[in-house]
Amino acid sequence: MDKPIEDMRLAQIGFLVNDIEKTKKEFARFFGVEEPETVNSGEFEITKTQYRGEPAPKAKCYMTFFYFGDLQMELIQPNEEPSIWKEHLEQFGEGIHHISFNVKGMQKTISACEDWGMELLQKGEYRRGNGRYAFMDALDSLKVVVELLERDE
Amino acid sequence: MDKPIEDMRLAQIGFLVNDIEKTKKEFARFFGVEEPETVNSGEFEITKTQYRGEPAPKAKCYMTFFYFGDLQMELIQPNEEPSIWKEHLEQFGEGIHHISFNVKGMQKTISACEDWGMELLQKGEYRRGNGRYAFMDALDSLKVVVELLERDE
Repeated sequence: MDKPIEDMRLAQIGFLVNDIEKTKKEFARFFGVEEPETVNSGEFEITKTQYRGEPAPKAKCYMTFFYFGDLQMELIQPNEEPSIWKEHLEQFGEGIHHISFNVKGMQKTISACEDWGMELLQKGEYRRGNGRYAFMDALDSLKVVVELLERDE
Repeated sequence: MDKPIEDMRLAQIGFLVNDIEKTKKEFARFFGVEEPETVNSGEFEITKTQYRGEPAPKAKCYMTFFYFGDLQMELIQPNEEPSIWKEHLEQFGEGIHHISFNVKGMQKTISACEDWGMELLQKGEYRRGNGRYAFMDALDSLKVVVELLERDE
């Protein structure tokens, strides 16, 4: 089986946290930068969130982003509705949840990851409708969730 | 408090695993590369490992490294003797343990991290004696362990 992702440069590391405002302060202090804005994951009409194969209109999260070098660090605080964010946070606690790679052609990359042995956990469109993400379960093999990111040109 | 580390570009992501040979195979399959060599952490006479402030001559691990882009991915399988590797693996299970930064001046950077609010968990010299590492506890603040790496010129 060929590698499922073309560009293996790491695009993002994503953390799940219980209190994004508190942890955001600590990251800003660590990096020596201003606190970035916290945004929410957006409206279902745009995001079309699917959690374990089913529409999840109530699944939401708060997100904030730090940049250093070529790498993005994302903090995610889920809401109380079922989502892969909430599920993972409850099962494993706070900490690094995923590593992300930029892809071209989301559906074919999801299929390649499934052929490789990963399961699709959740997918959706960006809150501004300018791209999409998919979380693939690689916990057994790579000990981490792999996120695919596709930004529309 | 100023940021404790000068160069905030991520140098390494480190995983703790139970079976390095098995997980190494999966990483090589994912990245589409040959399996790298597994090495051990070296002899205490060189490494001078200190675990929570005490000499830990029996603390050892197996390590292997993957490179993609500017980033190193490290897999670590600890031996059965007490170490921060074994402690963390038992407490949190397999997965990402640390993110690493290159520093210049290990002792002053450890002190800066301590002033920032991190606790020194373990430190030692590289197995070839050409550098040193320190694991700083940032689990409360940043939800991850921060590793300092200093390679001698």
